[in-house]
Amino acid sequence: MQNQDDGGAVRRRGRPRGSSSGGGRERIVAAASAEFHERGYEAASLRSIARRAGVDSALVHHYFDDKAGLFTEVVRVPLRPDRIIASVMEGPAELYGERLVHSVLTLWERPAVRPAATALLRTAVGTGTGASMVRSFLKGELLGQLARALPAPDADLRASLAASQMAGLLMLRFVLEIDPLSSAPVDEVVAAVGPVIQWHLTGTAPPGRTTATDA
Amino acid sequence: MQNQDDGGAVRRRGRPRGSSSGGGRERIVAAASAEFHERGYEAASLRSIARRAGVDSALVHHYFDDKAGLFTEVVRVPLRPDRIIASVMEGPAELYGERLVHSVLTLWERPAVRPAATALLRTAVGTGTGASMVRSFLKGELLGQLARALPAPDADLRASLAASQMAGLLMLRFVLEIDPLSSAPVDEVVAAVGPVIQWHLTGTAPPGRTTATDA
Repeated sequence: MQNQDDGGAVRRRGRPRGSSSGGGRERIVAAASAEFHERGYEAASLRSIARRAGVDSALVHHYFDDKAGLFTEVVRVPLRPDRIIASVMEGPAELYGERLVHSVLTLWERPAVRPAATALLRTAVGTGTGASMVRSFLKGELLGQLARALPAPDADLRASLAASQMAGLLMLRFVLEIDPLSSAPVDEVVAAVGPVIQWHLTGTAPPGRTTATDA
Repeated sequence: MQNQDDGGAVRRRGRPRGSSSGGGRERIVAAASAEFHERGYEAASLRSIARRAGVDSALVHHYFDDKAGLFTEVVRVPLRPDRIIASVMEGPAELYGERLVHSVLTLWERPAVRPAATALLRTAVGTGTGASMVRSFLKGELLGQLARALPAPDADLRASLAASQMAGLLMLRFVLEIDPLSSAPVDEVVAAVGPVIQWHLTGTAPPGRTTATDA
Protein backbone atom coordinates (compact mmCIF):
# COMPACT_ATOMS: atom_id res chain seq x y z
CA MET A 1 0.00 0.00 0.00
CA GLN A 2 1.22 3.46 -0.79
CA ASN A 3 0.04 5.43 2.19
CA GLN A 4 3.10 7.67 2.11
CA ASP A 5 1.70 10.97 3.17
CA ASP A 6 -2.04 10.70 3.48
CA GLY A 7 -3.38 14.07 4.47
CA GLY A 8 -0.31 15.92 3.42
CA ALA A 9 1.32 17.17 0.29
CA VAL A 10 0.78 15.05 -2.75
CA ARG A 11 3.70 15.20 -5.05
CA ARG A 12 2.37 15.15 -8.52
CA ARG A 13 3.01 16.37 -11.97
CA GLY A 14 0.05 15.90 -14.23
CA ARG A 15 -1.75 12.90 -12.87
CA PRO A 16 -1.61 12.12 -9.19
CA ARG A 17 0.81 9.50 -8.04
CA GLY A 18 -0.29 5.98 -8.70
CA SER A 19 -2.56 6.76 -11.57
CA SER A 20 -0.29 5.56 -14.31
CA SER A 21 0.62 2.23 -12.83
CA GLY A 22 0.02 -0.07 -9.92
CA GLY A 23 -3.72 -0.42 -10.52
CA GLY A 24 -4.65 2.57 -8.36
CA ARG A 25 -8.06 2.83 -9.94
CA GLU A 26 -8.81 -0.85 -9.42
CA ARG A 27 -7.62 -0.66 -5.82
CA ILE A 28 -9.90 2.30 -5.19
CA VAL A 29 -12.89 0.48 -6.61
CA ALA A 30 -12.13 -2.63 -4.53
CA ALA A 31 -11.69 -0.55 -1.39
CA ALA A 32 -14.91 1.32 -2.12
CA SER A 33 -16.77 -1.95 -2.53
CA ALA A 34 -15.64 -3.07 0.93
CA GLU A 35 -16.42 0.33 2.46
CA PHE A 36 -19.93 0.57 0.98
CA HIS A 37 -20.69 -2.98 2.03
CA GLU A 38 -19.56 -2.54 5.61
CA ARG A 39 -20.78 0.96 6.30
CA GLY A 40 -23.54 1.54 3.78
CA TYR A 41 -23.65 4.34 1.26
CA GLU A 42 -24.42 7.20 3.60
CA ALA A 43 -21.72 6.49 6.16
CA ALA A 44 -19.01 5.66 3.64
CA SER A 45 -16.42 8.36 3.04
CA LEU A 46 -14.00 9.01 0.21
CA ARG A 47 -11.25 9.66 2.75
CA SER A 48 -11.73 6.29 4.36
CA ILE A 49 -11.87 4.60 0.96
CA ALA A 50 -8.58 6.23 0.00
CA ARG A 51 -7.06 4.97 3.24
CA ARG A 52 -8.24 1.42 2.59
CA ALA A 53 -6.86 1.55 -0.93
CA GLY A 54 -3.55 2.93 0.30
CA VAL A 55 -3.76 5.93 -2.00
CA ASP A 56 -4.08 9.62 -1.49
CA SER A 57 -7.56 11.14 -1.51
CA ALA A 58 -6.48 13.24 -4.48
CA LEU A 59 -6.24 10.10 -6.57
CA VAL A 60 -9.81 9.17 -5.72
CA HIS A 61 -10.94 12.62 -6.84
CA HIS A 62 -8.85 12.29 -9.95
CA TYR A 63 -10.82 9.27 -11.10
CA PHE A 64 -14.26 9.92 -9.66
CA ASP A 65 -16.32 13.08 -9.43
CA ASP A 66 -17.93 12.21 -6.14
CA LYS A 67 -19.18 9.40 -3.92
CA ALA A 68 -22.13 8.75 -6.20
CA GLY A 69 -19.86 8.27 -9.20
CA LEU A 70 -17.64 5.91 -7.29
CA PHE A 71 -20.59 3.91 -6.04
CA THR A 72 -21.97 3.57 -9.52
CA GLU A 73 -18.61 2.25 -10.64
CA VAL A 74 -18.49 -0.19 -7.73
CA VAL A 75 -21.77 -1.75 -8.72
CA ARG A 76 -21.27 -1.50 -12.46
CA VAL A 77 -17.96 -3.33 -12.59
CA PRO A 78 -19.03 -6.66 -11.12
CA LEU A 79 -22.63 -6.58 -12.30
CA ARG A 80 -21.90 -5.61 -15.88
CA PRO A 81 -25.56 -5.29 -16.80
CA ASP A 82 -24.63 -4.54 -20.39
CA ARG A 83 -22.80 -7.83 -20.75
CA ILE A 84 -25.42 -9.93 -19.00
CA ILE A 85 -28.27 -8.52 -21.02
CA ALA A 86 -26.37 -8.74 -24.29
CA SER A 87 -25.35 -12.30 -23.58
CA VAL A 88 -28.89 -13.35 -22.67
CA MET A 89 -30.39 -11.66 -25.70
CA GLU A 90 -27.93 -13.35 -28.03
CA GLY A 91 -29.57 -16.70 -27.28
CA PRO A 92 -32.95 -17.99 -28.48
CA ALA A 93 -35.90 -15.78 -27.51
CA GLU A 94 -37.77 -18.61 -25.82
CA LEU A 95 -34.96 -18.96 -23.28
CA TYR A 96 -34.62 -15.28 -22.24
CA GLY A 97 -36.21 -15.94 -18.87
CA GLU A 98 -34.21 -19.01 -17.92
CA ARG A 99 -30.95 -17.56 -19.14
CA LEU A 100 -31.45 -14.28 -17.34
CA VAL A 101 -32.30 -15.90 -14.01
CA HIS A 102 -29.41 -18.33 -14.34
CA SER A 103 -26.92 -15.60 -15.22
CA VAL A 104 -27.97 -13.27 -12.42
CA LEU A 105 -28.08 -15.98 -9.74
CA THR A 106 -24.68 -17.40 -10.60
CA LEU A 107 -23.27 -13.88 -10.76
CA TRP A 108 -24.59 -13.03 -7.28
CA GLU A 109 -23.03 -16.14 -5.86
CA ARG A 110 -19.56 -14.91 -6.76
CA PRO A 111 -17.82 -13.47 -3.72
CA ALA A 112 -16.67 -10.40 -5.64
CA VAL A 113 -20.23 -9.52 -6.60
CA ARG A 114 -22.48 -10.27 -3.68
CA PRO A 115 -21.32 -7.49 -1.31
CA ALA A 116 -21.64 -4.77 -3.95
CA ALA A 117 -24.95 -6.10 -5.22
CA THR A 118 -26.36 -6.37 -1.72
CA ALA A 119 -25.22 -2.83 -0.95
CA LEU A 120 -26.94 -1.70 -4.14
CA LEU A 121 -30.28 -3.19 -3.10
CA ARG A 122 -30.02 -1.81 0.42
CA THR A 123 -29.13 1.64 -0.79
CA ALA A 124 -31.91 1.68 -3.38
CA VAL A 125 -34.53 0.94 -0.74
CA GLY A 126 -33.13 3.45 1.74
CA THR A 127 -34.11 7.03 2.37
CA GLY A 128 -30.69 8.66 2.08
CA THR A 129 -29.24 10.72 -0.71
CA GLY A 130 -27.76 7.58 -2.24
CA ALA A 131 -31.19 6.16 -2.94
CA SER A 132 -32.16 8.41 -5.82
CA MET A 133 -28.76 7.96 -7.41
CA VAL A 134 -29.02 4.19 -7.24
CA ARG A 135 -32.52 4.34 -8.64
CA SER A 136 -31.22 6.33 -11.60
CA PHE A 137 -28.58 3.70 -12.12
CA LEU A 138 -31.15 0.91 -11.98
CA LYS A 139 -33.46 2.68 -14.39
CA GLY A 140 -30.80 3.79 -16.82
CA GLU A 141 -28.39 0.88 -16.80
CA LEU A 142 -30.57 -2.09 -16.06
CA LEU A 143 -34.14 -1.36 -17.06
CA GLY A 144 -33.18 0.86 -19.93
CA GLN A 145 -30.88 -1.76 -21.43
CA LEU A 146 -33.43 -4.49 -20.99
CA ALA A 147 -36.26 -2.45 -22.49
CA ARG A 148 -34.18 -1.48 -25.51
CA ALA A 149 -33.54 -5.17 -26.19
CA LEU A 150 -37.26 -5.95 -26.33
CA PRO A 151 -39.30 -5.51 -29.49
CA ALA A 152 -42.59 -4.95 -27.66
CA PRO A 153 -44.23 -1.50 -27.70
CA ASP A 154 -44.80 -1.81 -23.94
CA ALA A 155 -41.15 -2.74 -23.41
CA ASP A 156 -40.66 -0.35 -20.50
CA LEU A 157 -43.49 -1.87 -18.50
CA ARG A 158 -42.35 -5.39 -19.35
CA ALA A 159 -38.79 -4.64 -18.30
CA SER A 160 -39.93 -3.18 -14.99
CA LEU A 161 -42.20 -6.18 -14.32
CA ALA A 162 -39.32 -8.56 -15.00
CA ALA A 163 -37.11 -6.45 -12.76
CA SER A 164 -39.71 -6.67 -9.99
CA GLN A 165 -39.50 -10.46 -9.98
CA MET A 166 -35.70 -10.43 -10.17
CA ALA A 167 -35.37 -7.82 -7.41
CA GLY A 168 -37.70 -9.71 -5.11
CA LEU A 169 -35.93 -12.98 -5.79
CA LEU A 170 -32.53 -11.46 -5.02
CA MET A 171 -33.91 -9.79 -1.92
CA LEU A 172 -35.40 -12.97 -0.44
CA ARG A 173 -32.59 -15.28 -1.53
CA PHE A 174 -29.52 -13.19 -0.78
CA VAL A 175 -30.48 -10.30 1.48
CA LEU A 176 -33.27 -11.61 3.72
CA GLU A 177 -32.04 -15.20 3.25
CA ILE A 178 -35.50 -16.67 3.57
CA ASP A 179 -35.57 -20.44 3.40
CA PRO A 180 -36.25 -22.57 1.45
CA LEU A 181 -35.71 -20.01 -1.31
CA SER A 182 -32.27 -19.04 -0.07
CA SER A 183 -30.99 -22.61 -0.01
CA ALA A 184 -32.77 -24.02 -3.07
CA PRO A 185 -30.43 -25.20 -5.85
CA VAL A 186 -29.92 -22.71 -8.66
CA ASP A 187 -31.55 -25.04 -11.19
CA GLU A 188 -34.69 -25.32 -9.12
CA VAL A 189 -34.98 -21.55 -8.84
CA VAL A 190 -34.33 -21.16 -12.56
CA ALA A 191 -37.12 -23.66 -13.29
CA ALA A 192 -39.57 -21.72 -11.09
CA VAL A 193 -38.62 -18.14 -11.91
CA GLY A 194 -37.35 -18.43 -15.50
CA PRO A 195 -40.89 -18.85 -16.91
CA VAL A 196 -42.01 -15.81 -14.92
CA ILE A 197 -39.32 -13.61 -16.45
CA GLN A 198 -40.22 -15.06 -19.85
CA TRP A 199 -43.87 -14.21 -19.25
CA HIS A 200 -43.08 -10.67 -18.20
CA LEU A 201 -40.68 -10.03 -21.08
CA THR A 202 -42.48 -11.75 -23.92
CA GLY A 203 -46.00 -12.64 -22.74
CA THR A 204 -45.35 -16.31 -23.42
CA ALA A 205 -46.98 -18.60 -20.90
CA PRO A 206 -44.94 -21.36 -19.27
CA PRO A 207 -45.86 -24.95 -20.12
CA GLY A 208 -47.51 -25.48 -16.74
CA ARG A 209 -46.14 -27.59 -13.98
CA THR A 210 -47.59 -30.21 -11.74
CA THR A 211 -47.43 -30.08 -8.00
CA ALA A 212 -44.20 -31.66 -6.86
CA THR A 213 -44.80 -34.97 -5.15
CA ASP A 214 -41.25 -35.83 -4.26
CA ALA A 215 -41.05 -33.54 -1.25
CA MET B 1 -40.80 -2.80 31.84
CA GLN B 2 -42.83 -0.17 33.62
CA ASN B 3 -40.61 2.81 33.59
CA GLN B 4 -42.48 4.66 36.33
CA ASP B 5 -40.55 7.83 36.61
CA ASP B 6 -39.31 8.46 33.16
CA GLY B 7 -38.39 12.11 33.43
CA GLY B 8 -41.32 13.00 35.64
CA ALA B 9 -43.95 11.91 38.09
CA VAL B 10 -46.61 9.64 36.68
CA ARG B 11 -49.69 9.55 38.81
CA ARG B 12 -51.16 6.15 38.57
CA ARG B 13 -52.95 3.52 40.52
CA GLY B 14 -52.95 0.20 38.71
CA ARG B 15 -52.73 1.01 35.05
CA PRO B 16 -50.90 4.08 33.84
CA ARG B 17 -52.90 7.13 32.98
CA GLY B 18 -54.66 6.89 29.66
CA SER B 19 -54.78 3.16 29.40
CA SER B 20 -58.42 2.74 30.31
CA SER B 21 -59.86 5.36 28.00
CA GLY B 22 -58.99 7.79 25.25
CA GLY B 23 -57.49 5.19 22.90
CA GLY B 24 -54.00 5.47 24.38
CA ARG B 25 -52.93 2.22 22.79
CA GLU B 26 -54.22 3.24 19.36
CA ARG B 27 -52.56 6.64 19.67
CA ILE B 28 -49.27 4.99 20.51
CA VAL B 29 -49.47 2.68 17.49
CA ALA B 30 -50.33 5.60 15.21
CA ALA B 31 -47.48 7.69 16.61
CA ALA B 32 -45.09 4.76 16.25
CA SER B 33 -46.12 4.32 12.63
CA ALA B 34 -45.24 7.95 11.91
CA GLU B 35 -41.99 7.73 13.86
CA PHE B 36 -40.79 4.52 12.16
CA HIS B 37 -41.68 5.92 8.77
CA GLU B 38 -39.87 9.21 9.25
CA ARG B 39 -36.81 8.06 11.15
CA GLY B 40 -36.51 4.36 10.33
CA TYR B 41 -36.44 1.55 12.83
CA GLU B 42 -32.99 2.12 14.24
CA ALA B 43 -33.33 5.83 14.94
CA ALA B 44 -36.87 5.63 16.31
CA SER B 45 -37.15 5.88 20.10
CA LEU B 46 -39.92 4.89 22.47
CA ARG B 47 -39.53 8.21 24.27
CA SER B 48 -40.14 10.15 21.08
CA ILE B 49 -43.09 7.92 20.18
CA ALA B 50 -44.64 8.61 23.59
CA ARG B 51 -44.18 12.33 23.01
CA ARG B 52 -45.88 12.17 19.61
CA ALA B 53 -48.76 10.20 21.09
CA GLY B 54 -49.11 12.63 23.97
CA VAL B 55 -48.74 9.92 26.56
CA ASP B 56 -46.19 9.08 29.19
CA SER B 57 -43.42 6.64 28.28
CA ALA B 58 -44.71 4.39 31.03
CA LEU B 59 -47.85 3.78 29.04
CA VAL B 60 -45.83 2.66 26.04
CA HIS B 61 -44.00 0.19 28.25
CA HIS B 62 -47.27 -0.93 29.75
CA TYR B 63 -48.54 -2.07 26.38
CA PHE B 64 -45.37 -3.13 24.58
CA ASP B 65 -42.34 -5.03 25.78
CA ASP B 66 -39.88 -3.17 23.61
CA LYS B 67 -39.35 -1.36 20.31
CA ALA B 68 -39.47 -4.62 18.36
CA GLY B 69 -42.86 -5.51 19.83
CA LEU B 70 -44.23 -2.10 19.02
CA PHE B 71 -42.90 -2.24 15.47
CA THR B 72 -44.47 -5.64 14.89
CA GLU B 73 -47.79 -4.20 16.06
CA VAL B 74 -47.40 -1.19 13.80
CA VAL B 75 -47.04 -3.36 10.74
CA ARG B 76 -49.46 -6.07 11.80
CA VAL B 77 -52.43 -3.79 12.39
CA PRO B 78 -52.79 -2.27 8.93
CA LEU B 79 -51.43 -5.22 6.97
CA ARG B 80 -53.52 -7.87 8.69
CA PRO B 81 -51.84 -10.70 6.79
CA ASP B 82 -54.14 -13.21 8.42
CA ARG B 83 -57.22 -11.49 7.04
CA ILE B 84 -55.84 -10.95 3.56
CA ILE B 85 -54.68 -14.53 3.16
CA ALA B 86 -57.89 -15.95 4.62
CA SER B 87 -60.00 -13.75 2.37
CA VAL B 88 -58.01 -14.68 -0.76
CA MET B 89 -58.10 -18.37 0.05
CA GLU B 90 -61.86 -18.31 0.55
CA GLY B 91 -62.33 -17.63 -3.14
CA PRO B 92 -61.86 -20.02 -6.06
CA ALA B 93 -58.40 -21.57 -6.29
CA GLU B 94 -57.88 -20.44 -9.86
CA LEU B 95 -58.10 -16.81 -8.74
CA TYR B 96 -55.63 -16.93 -5.84
CA GLY B 97 -53.02 -14.99 -7.79
CA GLU B 98 -55.25 -12.22 -9.07
CA ARG B 99 -57.04 -11.80 -5.77
CA LEU B 100 -53.82 -11.68 -3.78
CA VAL B 101 -52.20 -9.07 -6.02
CA HIS B 102 -55.35 -6.99 -6.09
CA SER B 103 -55.79 -7.12 -2.31
CA VAL B 104 -52.20 -6.24 -1.53
CA LEU B 105 -52.00 -3.39 -4.07
CA THR B 106 -55.21 -1.75 -2.94
CA LEU B 107 -54.17 -2.16 0.68
CA TRP B 108 -50.81 -0.45 0.05
CA GLU B 109 -52.52 2.46 -1.60
CA ARG B 110 -54.33 3.31 1.62
CA PRO B 111 -52.64 6.21 3.38
CA ALA B 112 -52.77 4.44 6.75
CA VAL B 113 -50.89 1.45 5.38
CA ARG B 114 -48.23 2.67 3.00
CA PRO B 115 -45.90 4.31 5.54
CA ALA B 116 -45.84 1.27 7.83
CA ALA B 117 -45.51 -1.15 4.94
CA THR B 118 -42.70 0.87 3.37
CA ALA B 119 -40.91 1.05 6.72
CA LEU B 120 -41.28 -2.72 6.98
CA LEU B 121 -39.60 -3.32 3.63
CA ARG B 122 -36.82 -0.85 4.38
CA THR B 123 -36.13 -2.33 7.77
CA ALA B 124 -36.15 -5.89 6.44
CA VAL B 125 -33.47 -5.06 3.89
CA GLY B 126 -31.33 -3.13 6.38
CA THR B 127 -28.42 -4.27 8.47
CA GLY B 128 -29.61 -3.08 11.88
CA THR B 129 -31.02 -5.04 14.76
CA GLY B 130 -34.51 -4.46 13.44
CA ALA B 131 -33.82 -6.50 10.33
CA SER B 132 -33.82 -9.94 11.90
CA MET B 133 -36.96 -9.13 13.85
CA VAL B 134 -38.78 -8.02 10.72
CA ARG B 135 -37.59 -11.11 8.89
CA SER B 136 -39.04 -13.29 11.65
CA PHE B 137 -42.32 -11.43 11.27
CA LEU B 138 -42.30 -11.91 7.51
CA LYS B 139 -41.51 -15.60 7.79
CA GLY B 140 -43.89 -16.36 10.62
CA GLU B 141 -46.83 -14.13 9.84
CA LEU B 142 -46.81 -13.87 6.08
CA LEU B 143 -45.00 -16.84 4.59
CA GLY B 144 -46.08 -19.23 7.31
CA GLN B 145 -49.75 -18.33 6.87
CA LEU B 146 -49.55 -18.56 3.12
CA ALA B 147 -47.73 -21.91 3.17
CA ARG B 148 -50.24 -23.41 5.59
CA ALA B 149 -53.05 -22.48 3.23
CA LEU B 150 -51.48 -24.38 0.34
CA PRO B 151 -52.02 -28.09 -0.13
CA ALA B 152 -48.74 -28.65 -1.97
CA PRO B 153 -45.95 -30.63 -0.32
CA ASP B 154 -43.48 -27.95 -1.38
CA ALA B 155 -45.73 -25.24 0.06
CA ASP B 156 -42.88 -23.42 1.81
CA LEU B 157 -40.91 -23.00 -1.39
CA ARG B 158 -44.01 -21.93 -3.30
CA ALA B 159 -44.95 -19.38 -0.67
CA SER B 160 -41.47 -17.88 -0.70
CA LEU B 161 -41.44 -17.71 -4.51
CA ALA B 162 -44.80 -15.92 -4.50
CA ALA B 163 -43.48 -13.61 -1.81
CA SER B 164 -40.44 -12.82 -3.94
CA GLN B 165 -42.66 -11.54 -6.76
CA MET B 166 -44.88 -9.61 -4.39
CA ALA B 167 -41.96 -8.08 -2.52
CA GLY B 168 -40.25 -7.00 -5.72
CA LEU B 169 -43.47 -5.56 -7.09
CA LEU B 170 -44.08 -3.55 -3.93
CA MET B 171 -40.48 -2.40 -3.91
CA LEU B 172 -40.49 -1.12 -7.49
CA ARG B 173 -44.01 0.30 -7.40
CA PHE B 174 -44.11 1.94 -3.99
CA VAL B 175 -40.58 2.28 -2.64
CA LEU B 176 -38.36 2.89 -5.68
CA GLU B 177 -41.33 4.29 -7.65
CA ILE B 178 -39.99 3.06 -10.95
CA ASP B 179 -42.12 4.02 -13.92
CA PRO B 180 -44.13 2.80 -15.71
CA LEU B 181 -44.73 0.17 -13.03
CA SER B 182 -45.37 2.76 -10.32
CA SER B 183 -48.03 4.57 -12.32
CA ALA B 184 -49.69 1.64 -14.11
CA PRO B 185 -53.37 1.12 -13.21
CA VAL B 186 -54.00 -1.54 -10.57
CA ASP B 187 -55.92 -3.70 -13.04
CA GLU B 188 -53.04 -3.73 -15.47
CA VAL B 189 -50.62 -4.82 -12.76
CA VAL B 190 -53.05 -7.46 -11.55
CA ALA B 191 -53.32 -8.83 -15.10
CA ALA B 192 -49.53 -9.05 -15.41
CA VAL B 193 -48.58 -10.25 -11.93
CA GLY B 194 -51.67 -12.24 -10.89
CA PRO B 195 -50.79 -15.16 -13.20
CA VAL B 196 -47.25 -15.16 -11.80
CA ILE B 197 -48.48 -15.53 -8.23
CA GLN B 198 -50.86 -18.22 -9.44
CA TRP B 199 -47.98 -20.03 -11.10
CA HIS B 200 -45.81 -19.85 -8.01
CA LEU B 201 -48.58 -20.96 -5.66
CA THR B 202 -50.27 -23.65 -7.70
CA GLY B 203 -48.08 -24.42 -10.73
CA THR B 204 -50.87 -23.46 -13.08
CA ALA B 205 -49.68 -21.70 -16.19
CA PRO B 206 -51.33 -18.47 -17.28
CA PRO B 207 -53.33 -18.56 -20.52
CA GLY B 208 -50.63 -16.70 -22.42
CA ARG B 209 -50.87 -13.15 -23.55
CA THR B 210 -50.13 -11.40 -26.76
CA THR B 211 -47.85 -8.45 -27.12
CA ALA B 212 -49.80 -5.29 -26.53
CA THR B 213 -50.28 -3.35 -29.72
CA ASP B 214 -52.22 -0.43 -28.35
CA ALA B 215 -49.21 1.34 -26.86
